[in-house]
Amino acid sequence: MMRDWRVVGLRSVVGLAASLAGCSMAFFVQAARADEGMWLINALPKEQLEDRYGFEPSAAWLEKAQHAAVKVGQGGSGSFVSARGLVMTNHHVASEAIQKLTTPERNLMRDGFIAKSEAEELRVEGQEISMLVGIRDVTKEINAAAEKDAGNPQAAEAARQAEIGRIETEESKKSGLNCRVVTLFGGGLYHLYSVKRFTDVRLVFAPEELAASYGGDADNFEYPRFGLDMAFFRVYENGKPYEPKHFFAFNPSGAKEGEAVFVVGHPGRTQRLLTVDDLRFLRDYEYPARLAEIWRTEVHLREFMGRSKRNALVAGDEYDGVANSRKARQGQLRGLQDPTLMKAKIEAQEKLFDSRMPEVQRAVSAVAALSAAKKPWREGISQFILLNRGMPGELSSRALKLVLRSEEITRDSAQRLREFRDARLEETDEDILNDVPMDEAFETALLSSWLSRIVELRGGDDQLVRSILGNQTAQRVAYDAISGTKLKDQSERKRLLLGGADAIKDSTDPLIVLARKVAPAVSAIRKGYERTVEPAEREAYARLAEARFKVLGQSVAPDATGTLRVSFGAVKGYTQDGEQIPAFTTLQGLLDRAKKHEGEAEYALVPRFQAAAGKFNPATPYNFVCTADIIGGNSGSPVLNAKGEVVGLIFDGNIESLPNAFLYSEERARAVSVDVRAILESLRVVYDAKGLLTELETGK
Amino acid sequence: MMRDWRVVGLRSVVGLAASLAGCSMAFFVQAARADEGMWLINALPKEQLEDRYGFEPSAAWLEKAQHAAVKVGQGGSGSFVSARGLVMTNHHVASEAIQKLTTPERNLMRDGFIAKSEAEELRVEGQEISMLVGIRDVTKEINAAAEKDAGNPQAAEAARQAEIGRIETEESKKSGLNCRVVTLFGGGLYHLYSVKRFTDVRLVFAPEELAASYGGDADNFEYPRFGLDMAFFRVYENGKPYEPKHFFAFNPSGAKEGEAVFVVGHPGRTQRLLTVDDLRFLRDYEYPARLAEIWRTEVHLREFMGRSKRNALVAGDEYDGVANSRKARQGQLRGLQDPTLMKAKIEAQEKLFDSRMPEVQRAVSAVAALSAAKKPWREGISQFILLNRGMPGELSSRALKLVLRSEEITRDSAQRLREFRDARLEETDEDILNDVPMDEAFETALLSSWLSRIVELRGGDDQLVRSILGNQTAQRVAYDAISGTKLKDQSERKRLLLGGADAIKDSTDPLIVLARKVAPAVSAIRKGYERTVEPAEREAYARLAEARFKVLGQSVAPDATGTLRVSFGAVKGYTQDGEQIPAFTTLQGLLDRAKKHEGEAEYALVPRFQAAAGKFNPATPYNFVCTADIIGGNSGSPVLNAKGEVVGLIFDGNIESLPNAFLYSEERARAVSVDVRAILESLRVVYDAKGLLTELETGK
Repeated sequence: MMRDWRVVGLRSVVGLAASLAGCSMAFFVQAARADEGMWLINALPKEQLEDRYGFEPSAAWLEKAQHAAVKVGQGGSGSFVSARGLVMTNHHVASEAIQKLTTPERNLMRDGFIAKSEAEELRVEGQEISMLVGIRDVTKEINAAAEKDAGNPQAAEAARQAEIGRIETEESKKSGLNCRVVTLFGGGLYHLYSVKRFTDVRLVFAPEELAASYGGDADNFEYPRFGLDMAFFRVYENGKPYEPKHFFAFNPSGAKEGEAVFVVGHPGRTQRLLTVDDLRFLRDYEYPARLAEIWRTEVHLREFMGRSKRNALVAGDEYDGVANSRKARQGQLRGLQDPTLMKAKIEAQEKLFDSRMPEVQRAVSAVAALSAAKKPWREGISQFILLNRGMPGELSSRALKLVLRSEEITRDSAQRLREFRDARLEETDEDILNDVPMDEAFETALLSSWLSRIVELRGGDDQLVRSILGNQTAQRVAYDAISGTKLKDQSERKRLLLGGADAIKDSTDPLIVLARKVAPAVSAIRKGYERTVEPAEREAYARLAEARFKVLGQSVAPDATGTLRVSFGAVKGYTQDGEQIPAFTTLQGLLDRAKKHEGEAEYALVPRFQAAAGKFNPATPYNFVCTADIIGGNSGSPVLNAKGEVVGLIFDGNIESLPNAFLYSEERARAVSVDVRAILESLRVVYDAKGLLTELETGK
Repeated sequence: MMRDWRVVGLRSVVGLAASLAGCSMAFFVQAARADEGMWLINALPKEQLEDRYGFEPSAAWLEKAQHAAVKVGQGGSGSFVSARGLVMTNHHVASEAIQKLTTPERNLMRDGFIAKSEAEELRVEGQEISMLVGIRDVTKEINAAAEKDAGNPQAAEAARQAEIGRIETEESKKSGLNCRVVTLFGGGLYHLYSVKRFTDVRLVFAPEELAASYGGDADNFEYPRFGLDMAFFRVYENGKPYEPKHFFAFNPSGAKEGEAVFVVGHPGRTQRLLTVDDLRFLRDYEYPARLAEIWRTEVHLREFMGRSKRNALVAGDEYDGVANSRKARQGQLRGLQDPTLMKAKIEAQEKLFDSRMPEVQRAVSAVAALSAAKKPWREGISQFILLNRGMPGELSSRALKLVLRSEEITRDSAQRLREFRDARLEETDEDILNDVPMDEAFETALLSSWLSRIVELRGGDDQLVRSILGNQTAQRVAYDAISGTKLKDQSERKRLLLGGADAIKDSTDPLIVLARKVAPAVSAIRKGYERTVEPAEREAYARLAEARFKVLGQSVAPDATGTLRVSFGAVKGYTQDGEQIPAFTTLQGLLDRAKKHEGEAEYALVPRFQAAAGKFNPATPYNFVCTADIIGGNSGSPVLNAKGEVVGLIFDGNIESLPNAFLYSEERARAVSVDVRAILESLRVVYDAKGLLTELETGK
């Protein structure tokens, strides 16, 4: 629950801005400049690569890049780095797995983990790693299926979706792979991606969390950085290490300043191609409203955590997620508020709209209709955000789902709220019935904060507010509902789920009673948005896609979609407030920083680093920055040189890269990587991880 | 600067809600119930005292209470507790003084301070303590002066103000005292208070800050508490200890559960008598908007502080102030959102308005006019709050003042913004020219946050926003303005102040240029509010005062005004979420709490307490709660028994007392005190402060 908060910058495993209601895959006139672009592996900008870096990727280079780069979990990147299925990724991408493996006797987050042999590797339940096996363009088939309904957009869309479903099912059956159609350019292109999934994944190595995320919260998004944000898994198949056909070899010399580098990974989501009015909506309404929610929640969580050690433990993850989300959104809002960004967007849109071509003029009308559809949501966006999220906490969210479900289930599938449509109902029911650890005080605090927010936004005399509060305070209502509910028992949730509308109507459970009061408002505002804004968005961005293809062809990369992409750039420092920030940091820099921040927990050297301080070469490059265009989801991507060898490991972006969601800046945005030399030196001197070191050096 | 934030709960030295634009001293029908009321010392509710506590204050009791209770600084309370001018107050009231006396060699905040003899007492520059010598009712004289202008409210008000000025000047001259007229019941009564000021104040004793504010931020506003929040000053006159005619003797037996107690102090500000629509305005618009500002600022300050130890030091005070302010306002908003509070307020107002008396009907019209005048400010209140505060930081606020001044000074005094009227101009100029320590990074962060808030509230296409930003980001504008300004030099500020409009107009100083862009908006919104809302407020609350006197007489205490008041109640625990909270805590409880929170800095016992842990009597009562009606400004008030002996020392209220600003609840609101027995036991066993102990025990 409350995943909405877990949006977050690059160090999050989830894509940026994922909560923005589905309006991403569209675009304008905007010639790719500089090192901008998260390119499709089968459509790299060859001229640009040749011009800027004198590089022409061979077929072998591309084949290796496609097969050796993997997706880790739902939102992270990684790569095969040995012939025995060794996978390199970030510690923060692997941290959920590392946490799962932690037991009272074995604190892997605090102490790290080194498997001395394959036998010692630890299997991670539920961890998935996947590899892209094939790509096929299916645009023609899908458009052909929709041709007969050309005059009726809704029917055409239904026909397209049916054809997509057919292709996916058929191909999956045929190949034994996981096949899905990826929509690019808002429907300009459809590619079928065939993916091989590995589910026997074992932990090989993890450093101490403190070494991985050195500098903690304060340094997050900052550069210079000194993080050893790496981890290694091994992929098994049939109980044996998987032997991939392709893997990336380590180049122990790393990259030089100015050298061209390539990032192969799975960037989550960009919104480079939004209309100017949608950007204005984000800048002036949606982002300020989301940040207002975040600031409030952050302060409330800190307050709760300050009350006891137990509370601090219980709410710590949630707090970190919110704080990360705040940084990401703040950075993005700063980008949107930057007059030069908006100016560039306006110019690009005006240039496109200048054409008299009928495709362009249709796009102009559709964009105007979208602006009109969104206008009524300006002032009410705060309420939409709050109610769309629903009641927070494990208990309350289940109560609301139960109540909404009992109502929605009586309608045709297509008329229901998304999570109750036939295709997703099973998953939703599992969510409702699932037992998870939960803390009553935290549940109460979350619900209390959410209810009092409704009072703040709607005022004390509002009908919904009066119905929720009765004669009580929001705090009391939350306390009574959580302490009195029987939903803690799975059997009671099951009874209510199976009992349907009658069971819900008859229930006197205080949390169900509360959810019954809230549900109609949640349902109404969500359906209002879905029925007015979303069709206008689909229409506008589809028309824009057509217009753009007509005017520009395919000279721009599509927005990120969580699928495999290649970015490129040069190893290069930058300037911040007049100060020159160097491309590389070194191990000596780490020692200096620890000394400067003596006494601060987040800057303490872990014992292994303290012990090794006299032994490692202090001149070893530690982290470095490059101009490659990345975003959340790229975490764990290998940084390759022109030969396709590993020279680094992406783990973060600088704070200036946060507006990357909307506009890339070669001048200021930088991807931050762990240098391959620091990986090897630390394995050699600090961790004494001989086996892993040899495997990385020899590929075996 | 930024004093606006320092509003804060009881532990603040400034009154609660001080930033609410002048709408306090008014009232409704509301019979005083229970232990409610901060009573004028010369108008105690005798029947109620007799009925509830069988207590009839003698003339001697009242005379002593008036003379032995003192005001400490601008917003704290205290009392004479020996015949040699010893004054007891809170550590947190004295903390500014204690901080001032701290030197690199002598950390009084950390280590505390014990003067072993009068010779060792430390004089505090600028510390004032004052004693109320006489009260005279001057209502008749003041109303008489206004009689000739009865038909013209503005002229009548001017005549009253002139008469007030005349009386104050004349009486001060005659008596050698500081004489001022206090307006009670929104103008229903005028009392002349003659006050004796002491400026030679010396520190006698202070415990360690950690002992005084034990439990720190987390326990602030909580109960059970374990704070030794006390400090002792001595007042000198002509170089010798002042010998007051009256002082409160200590009663070493303290008070029993259920015993009647009396609090004599200087409560800052209540708003118990606001109209229902004004309360709704606060509940639905103003408080949510102020809290939104606070949450945002709190997060921004934490972000700034997280960047370095230096930043943490620089912004620490500001942060504490904002966090305290947030707690106070959150508690008040919870009170306003409590349906029972609003219901009680509505009933009281309806009951009053039910009368057909012409005075009442005039009040009804005036209240309706006030509601109408405030309505247009609902949505814009956030902008009013932001711009009314002005540019933040030492440099930016001076720049804005310089620019506003150059414009305002050309108008008639009465037409100017308040701080530039003749009576206050000198003070404002001093503020502009004053040199204070400041930190450029902090100045930049504050200004940057303020400017980006303007962008958030007005949107990126707004004219003011465009003029402020040009082609830059808000962060860059702030950085350039602060790093480039010459206002750091006093001589430059003086040149611009003396140079007037021309000097300001010609200045190319980037901070002045920025202030020139901002000033017209600040000036316009402030004048708009002052001209539409404030006259309507004065009129409505004056009419309400008349109506109320007519219907009810004086059976209600006036709202707190920072002047001497008496509250009363019983020593009594309360119930919170079904749990019984005891009236007393003990020293044993302190030891238990320290153990429970081992490893948390805020709960560590200071070395002296650790050393004394085996020696003091663990059953000694430490803190206790009573039902007396208190609010910010009461900090440091003595708690007396019926004999007028000290049994405790007020230092805080529980979280349920935060809505005290609007409505007192005998059921839930509690005043928190240090028990007299803990004061004596700690001086005896922990601090070995023999001299002070003897003085308190013998009064000599």
